[in-house]
Amino acid sequence: MSIATYTVVGMTCGHCVTAVTGEIAALDGVKAVEVDLEVDGSSRVAVTSASPLAVVPVRAAVQEAGYDLAGVTR
Amino acid sequence: MSIATYTVVGMTCGHCVTAVTGEIAALDGVKAVEVDLEVDGSSRVAVTSASPLAVVPVRAAVQEAGYDLAGVTR
Repeated sequence: MSIATYTVVGMTCGHCVTAVTGEIAALDGVKAVEVDLEVDGSSRVAVTSASPLAVVPVRAAVQEAGYDLAGVTR
Repeated sequence: MSIATYTVVGMTCGHCVTAVTGEIAALDGVKAVEVDLEVDGSSRVAVTSASPLAVVPVRAAVQEAGYDLAGVTR
């Protein structure tokens, strides 16, 4: 099992959390998504997956939801 | 035709606009709903209706969407 924490900018409310969570949860191998919403800045999104995820599909999922991926910590 | 402008607090993003617009648009007699989103404060929601709306159902619609009605200008 692998956990990585992504920083996502532009999320402001619970609807944003739902949108981002839904897109990332739909990625292959993702087991859990947990969002720590920071309305005034960058939110942290912890993603648990069966094996480490490539950043490209995670970034695409975040962008699909309408936000930007600012970084990742593994 | 009647137009009233409501002040709604707590809306932060396009999802919030969609939620509020949907709830108000479902009220009897509403012809159009236009939101001017102010992320850092109070947003204005202009509602066009066949005849003047009572405030109570509009307030209920806004609360149903998860926000608070702060005032109305007719």
